[in-house]
Amino acid sequence: MTNLLVKELLALPPESQDVTVRGWVRTKRDLKNLVFVEVNDGSAFDGIQCTFDRGGGSLGAALETSLSALSTGASVEVRGALVPSPASGQAVEVAATVLTLIGDAPAENTDGIPAYPLQKKRHSLEFLREIAHLRARTNTFGAVARVRSRLGFAVHQFFQERGFQYLNTPIITASDAEGAGAMFQVTTLDLDALGRSGKVPDYGKDFFGKRSYLTVSGQLEAETYAAALSRVYTFGPTFRAENSNTTRHLAEFWMIEPEAAFAELEDNMALAEDFLKYIFKTALSDCSADLAFFDAHVEKGIIDTLRSVVDLPFVHMSYTDAMTELERAIKAGTAFEFKPYWGCDLQSEHEKYLTEKVVKGPLIVTDYPKEIKAFYMKMNDDNKTVRAMDVLVPRLGEIIGGSQREDSLARLEARIREMGMNPADYGWYLDLRRYGTVPHSGFGVGFERLIQYVTGMANIRDVIPYPRAVGQAEF
Amino acid sequence: MTNLLVKELLALPPESQDVTVRGWVRTKRDLKNLVFVEVNDGSAFDGIQCTFDRGGGSLGAALETSLSALSTGASVEVRGALVPSPASGQAVEVAATVLTLIGDAPAENTDGIPAYPLQKKRHSLEFLREIAHLRARTNTFGAVARVRSRLGFAVHQFFQERGFQYLNTPIITASDAEGAGAMFQVTTLDLDALGRSGKVPDYGKDFFGKRSYLTVSGQLEAETYAAALSRVYTFGPTFRAENSNTTRHLAEFWMIEPEAAFAELEDNMALAEDFLKYIFKTALSDCSADLAFFDAHVEKGIIDTLRSVVDLPFVHMSYTDAMTELERAIKAGTAFEFKPYWGCDLQSEHEKYLTEKVVKGPLIVTDYPKEIKAFYMKMNDDNKTVRAMDVLVPRLGEIIGGSQREDSLARLEARIREMGMNPADYGWYLDLRRYGTVPHSGFGVGFERLIQYVTGMANIRDVIPYPRAVGQAEF
Repeated sequence: MTNLLVKELLALPPESQDVTVRGWVRTKRDLKNLVFVEVNDGSAFDGIQCTFDRGGGSLGAALETSLSALSTGASVEVRGALVPSPASGQAVEVAATVLTLIGDAPAENTDGIPAYPLQKKRHSLEFLREIAHLRARTNTFGAVARVRSRLGFAVHQFFQERGFQYLNTPIITASDAEGAGAMFQVTTLDLDALGRSGKVPDYGKDFFGKRSYLTVSGQLEAETYAAALSRVYTFGPTFRAENSNTTRHLAEFWMIEPEAAFAELEDNMALAEDFLKYIFKTALSDCSADLAFFDAHVEKGIIDTLRSVVDLPFVHMSYTDAMTELERAIKAGTAFEFKPYWGCDLQSEHEKYLTEKVVKGPLIVTDYPKEIKAFYMKMNDDNKTVRAMDVLVPRLGEIIGGSQREDSLARLEARIREMGMNPADYGWYLDLRRYGTVPHSGFGVGFERLIQYVTGMANIRDVIPYPRAVGQAEF
Repeated sequence: MTNLLVKELLALPPESQDVTVRGWVRTKRDLKNLVFVEVNDGSAFDGIQCTFDRGGGSLGAALETSLSALSTGASVEVRGALVPSPASGQAVEVAATVLTLIGDAPAENTDGIPAYPLQKKRHSLEFLREIAHLRARTNTFGAVARVRSRLGFAVHQFFQERGFQYLNTPIITASDAEGAGAMFQVTTLDLDALGRSGKVPDYGKDFFGKRSYLTVSGQLEAETYAAALSRVYTFGPTFRAENSNTTRHLAEFWMIEPEAAFAELEDNMALAEDFLKYIFKTALSDCSADLAFFDAHVEKGIIDTLRSVVDLPFVHMSYTDAMTELERAIKAGTAFEFKPYWGCDLQSEHEKYLTEKVVKGPLIVTDYPKEIKAFYMKMNDDNKTVRAMDVLVPRLGEIIGGSQREDSLARLEARIREMGMNPADYGWYLDLRRYGTVPHSGFGVGFERLIQYVTGMANIRDVIPYPRAVGQAEF
């Protein structure tokens, strides 16, 4: 790529050098002597101002015609000199002399083409969801896309710098080992023919020779690689076939799952804290223009919230102590919709209370009752609680869930039986405890939840390019 | 993570400082006065040698017992002093004084646990595929995993450094827009009930309200974001439900798809050349120990091949000129299994001939007949060829396929009709040509093919942790 992006042009010292700008018209203002065209190419929040100066006369018939035809959304190439900008809020602008219209974007219905839907005005997020193929051209969704890209890269930087190996765990799986949620089935059977057959399917004829599903987590497979490479992380799509039409759930979302050998719960907590601080620090330093927009127009105070998570040490508290705090709160008059008791899962209102009112900062709750956590978590000596951890942050509640894993073959087999499952179904997973078992720990983070937290976007469907949910698989 | 990895220990200056090594036993040699234990933690190709010195006497009953019980695959913690190693091939070793056995790996069937399957001897790749949950503990698969991780990160570094935004295109899709291959269907319908019903399915009751599939490419969606952010790339799983049981095909594989606005075929060729050189340079510099192993034990000459791709300029040649070269070769006596003619798709044997015999280096073939390429490729003025490009490399043939995309609404609609498809099915894709269309280009690379090329591994199932193919979705 030899042409410079707008973000690169904006960073150049203005020395009247010849530059070429390529992008899409955001606004055009035609004053008496000057025509201002703001060109944005999505490389940065800001576009670059291109100023055509009539110098009291005319720019010439050809250029005047081109300029008058320009409308929002048109693609252009502008050439001119990069000069200091007299306007506030921008260091440089282009003293433009040449304009080439590359692709029109009609402001009104023209020749059977409907008017460009993104005219310069406010559009509702609901409307923009319907034109998801165009919404990245708006301020809001351009900013979301840039933050998502930068933080996706930051995830890799964080783990690679710490000796973690990137691992691609399988998407299609024939094992329903974790039982973490409803699964999508994957098939190449002809379902029309199956329906007409009057018979149940013969999975021996399906592509994989057995029932197969989309993964709900790469954790168990990640453990197998942590038991070989010591430190690994996954970053890939996971799926839930749950019929929940909320602003916090997607049927398809991206998960980050680090797993480390020779790591106990304390190491895991430290890693999770370092991870969140690294990601938020990167957002604050490298996405400042986009974050300023979110703070001003999407959710006030989002920058301060991120700064506080970066600055404050994460408090550690056991589930049992958390329960004591919640009971104390009730005695002091706090009303919860759901009354907490030892053994219950923490609700969002409890999590928010603990982090916002009790510790006034990020909080890691540990050692949950075994009944409300997964079978693979390491049992404490009390035989009642497990080495789980949930990381809670102000405004949101849980952002990370993880645990130390059970590394004892006997205890893991016993727990599997206790939960009414069959150890024979977990042969390869149990092998990790048969051969060179080690203490190991890991956690999972939903990438979209992270992006929601950083951007303040209320609906999770607005932080992934093409959201999948019940009844929604367009594009 | 506070404990040091073996790769970090190996890089320390040996100053007799106390160190702790955690990992798995690869080998143990018990000589008269010395016991050598090689501990590997997967962070590097090499393990670290831990030497227990009997000094003419005994190490004490407890340590002697622990040492004698140690077998390959056991997990241990060793403490001692980091000292210069007298042995060749290693700069440092541990003068060990403390050994803790963390997890056994029985060398023989013990207490109902079968012997550890990875005893110190050569295992066939076929056997290791059956124990894919343990194979990363071997030299070969540990090296594959590290190369894959490093190059996965290099993909992100390459594009982020060049202003490309990382984009997650959807995995589940209701559009079969590209028609690039057989697709897996995704469903939550109860297939047993469907079979018994005697009726064809009612997709209104399926999760997404219509037939849905696993994606075969993120390109069309990537184009929508390139038309907003200028430069994007995807890196995610894609799927083909093809019943091809070969060493070069998987049902689930990872694809990298950059897409750039304001980029013509020449820019696209330069980007593809830069990309391959960057990836191979990174492998040569950062994975040298792993590559030395592949060169010695998997495929001789692999390092020289990579160096030549890095050093040689990529030759550009039109399909028509390539055909002339092949015809010349036939006249000169070269025998091809498949006789080439203008209009045919290039076979692997033709690609190898062109790159290995004609240009003796990397080659980009451009401007293919429209009949053998996809509908979205930009038509040349001859109305017979399109602005496609395939990048061919010695030993393999095609490693990258791409094109400049058709940016004219009229020509794209005409081409869709010409191919017997309906423009109405491509509404959102055509919108990119209705509103601010720009010249744009992109390409696709199969990540596993890239890893095969770098490692020399013959079977694609050996360069992804858990391969999915016909009849194969274990783990």
